Amino acid sequence: MIDLRDDFPILKNKIYGQRLVYLDNAATSQKPSSVIDAISDFYKYDNSNIHRGVHYLSELSSDRYEEARKKISTFIGSSDPSEIRFTAGTTDSINQVAFSLKSTLMGNEVLISGMEHHSNIVPWQLAEAKIKTIPMDEDCNLLLDSIEITDKTKLIAISHVSNVLGTVNDIKRITEIAKEHDIPVLVDAAQSIQHLPIDVEKIGCDFLAASGHKMYASSGIGVLYTNNRYSDIMPARGGGGMVDKVTFEGSTYLSPPLRYEAGTPNISGAISVNSAIDYMQDIGLDKIRKHEHDVYSYAKERLLDTDGITVYGNNEDMCGSISFNIENIHHYDLGLILDKMGVAVRTGHHCAQPLMKFLGTEGTVRASFALYNTKDDVDILMDSIEKARMMFS
Amino acid sequence: MIDLRDDFPILKNKIYGQRLVYLDNAATSQKPSSVIDAISDFYKYDNSNIHRGVHYLSELSSDRYEEARKKISTFIGSSDPSEIRFTAGTTDSINQVAFSLKSTLMGNEVLISGMEHHSNIVPWQLAEAKIKTIPMDEDCNLLLDSIEITDKTKLIAISHVSNVLGTVNDIKRITEIAKEHDIPVLVDAAQSIQHLPIDVEKIGCDFLAASGHKMYASSGIGVLYTNNRYSDIMPARGGGGMVDKVTFEGSTYLSPPLRYEAGTPNISGAISVNSAIDYMQDIGLDKIRKHEHDVYSYAKERLLDTDGITVYGNNEDMCGSISFNIENIHHYDLGLILDKMGVAVRTGHHCAQPLMKFLGTEGTVRASFALYNTKDDVDILMDSIEKARMMFS
Repeated sequence: MIDLRDDFPILKNKIYGQRLVYLDNAATSQKPSSVIDAISDFYKYDNSNIHRGVHYLSELSSDRYEEARKKISTFIGSSDPSEIRFTAGTTDSINQVAFSLKSTLMGNEVLISGMEHHSNIVPWQLAEAKIKTIPMDEDCNLLLDSIEITDKTKLIAISHVSNVLGTVNDIKRITEIAKEHDIPVLVDAAQSIQHLPIDVEKIGCDFLAASGHKMYASSGIGVLYTNNRYSDIMPARGGGGMVDKVTFEGSTYLSPPLRYEAGTPNISGAISVNSAIDYMQDIGLDKIRKHEHDVYSYAKERLLDTDGITVYGNNEDMCGSISFNIENIHHYDLGLILDKMGVAVRTGHHCAQPLMKFLGTEGTVRASFALYNTKDDVDILMDSIEKARMMFS
Repeated sequence: MIDLRDDFPILKNKIYGQRLVYLDNAATSQKPSSVIDAISDFYKYDNSNIHRGVHYLSELSSDRYEEARKKISTFIGSSDPSEIRFTAGTTDSINQVAFSLKSTLMGNEVLISGMEHHSNIVPWQLAEAKIKTIPMDEDCNLLLDSIEITDKTKLIAISHVSNVLGTVNDIKRITEIAKEHDIPVLVDAAQSIQHLPIDVEKIGCDFLAASGHKMYASSGIGVLYTNNRYSDIMPARGGGGMVDKVTFEGSTYLSPPLRYEAGTPNISGAISVNSAIDYMQDIGLDKIRKHEHDVYSYAKERLLDTDGITVYGNNEDMCGSISFNIENIHHYDLGLILDKMGVAVRTGHHCAQPLMKFLGTEGTVRASFALYNTKDDVDILMDSIEKARMMFS
């Protein structure tokens, strides 16, 4: 069992005088010192705008930015860094795809799951596509044999891991089905990139979106992998750095990745992603996964073993988030009480209203885990739940 | 004369063993220690996702984020913080307006100046609008009496200060003309917010876009002011945090500013903007402006007094950037040589190809100033230019 709490300055703070048990990692992760220092050091030693400068700092910043692109590219299994663009986050990444594919999607259909985050629903509606869903059973497992693909299905967009349930969807099987029908697949990896190995080439997806801030990097940075098959789709944003020739009559665009990065990017954000990947790789990804699996399984087991708790979703393969409700205590009230005991969880619909409707609840309590959580955190969570129940009994 | 170099850690670094004379501020500014520390401290003590959490850190982060919104709102003269949305930068801000107004702009005309940055040209082209320009004289001053507005003119989009020339455009006069024709005005304040007082209510503009990284804050954060008259335009991005009800059949949106901030925003970026404004206000905005005016005027004077130098643009009101070329030395070569003497300038078309065409040059050398530049920096620039000329003579 590894204990990495000491690497994370914020975890040393007391919340109402108590140990911070941070179980809101699906919303955002905390940052290790090495990442915080990488950001500071960038501004102290290297900061400049990139790409278009001839001077020393500009060269340095450009190199460091492109190094970050290569790092994340390799991390998710792309052999070509130009398939990676930096964005403002997962939501931005998905919106960029929706904008670029709008002429194809408009009036047609996007196939998603019933457990999607709003960020994988609303962008397709803005692109004027109809949403269709893959059926799922009562345990929230996708019934992939019942996928219905029609002539109108122009994209499958699917979360790798549910932000509410922690369910891991079988992306590989989905891309296989999609390929039979020659339909592109977008993977929302916001809840998987920090927990599971990702290999876009093995998965065979066309787009993959993820956020920095959920994988120990800073806020305001995300990535979008776009397979080279789609290297010439319409850029979602126009501006400096992505154009070749600009006249008032019309403009021509550069090749990817520059084509898709209009304006000054979040340079320190990209550098924080590089540093966050270094941090994880230095510990060892296998070690992290084993540790996270142990803590997650322990939490699940303890919740399932307690009377009067409903745990949502049931799959052999789960990670990250666990959603539950407790008899006779509103999820919001439980969240407030846990907070007073130093336990940070999230409550509500978790930006997944259609899933809440499917589950027949207005909201849940969600405990979500990161590499610094331990079985001690789970024990504190369970003790705190027990105290809350006593208060309400 | 104030000297603020000590507040900026990066300025203590030696470039090829020499004092760093950083004159690339129109590309990005350096950051004072207070801003760098504000970012680190946020991650060490306060970090969480915002808006949707019941726990202590989430409340704290939300408060700090909304505090930043209020600060920038007041800084630019808006009396209603909900008119401010945080974006990824000026380019993103302008693209959001282009997306939201597309149904109005498509097939119609956007009136801009001939000195615009590509980020205030290409987004309108992506919105399928035609670009028309306000005429300008050979000194690059806009001929506002010759503005031609037709039934097809649906927006005026104009830079407050030219990123190439430093020319300050008479925005107030432009909004007056626009009002006569009931046309909205977007102001690109990327090159003015760090130099000039801005008061959106006095200016009477409808949209104003700016970047954090050019005003001493971090990269990846920008703002878009949208007058309440336009509070119900189509959101440019869909996702979590901006919706009221989401179903697979359709979604409804929240009111501004949330309506326009899909997904997790750049929280630490917003906090860095707050800190950067504090830094400037602690020094005193009037003091900064006087200092910048003195240094800028001195630089301009020295360049104009030197034989064989062409300085582009001539207006009574200029700030920030000065563009020039030197007889018989290519701008790129001069940039490279200056760099070796520790002087960071930018060379090329500065993302303003149409202006370069107007000026009859492929590119310029641009020196651009910030509050930490001094007359010493100008002297070193001029000495270095002199040395370069001797090398080429």
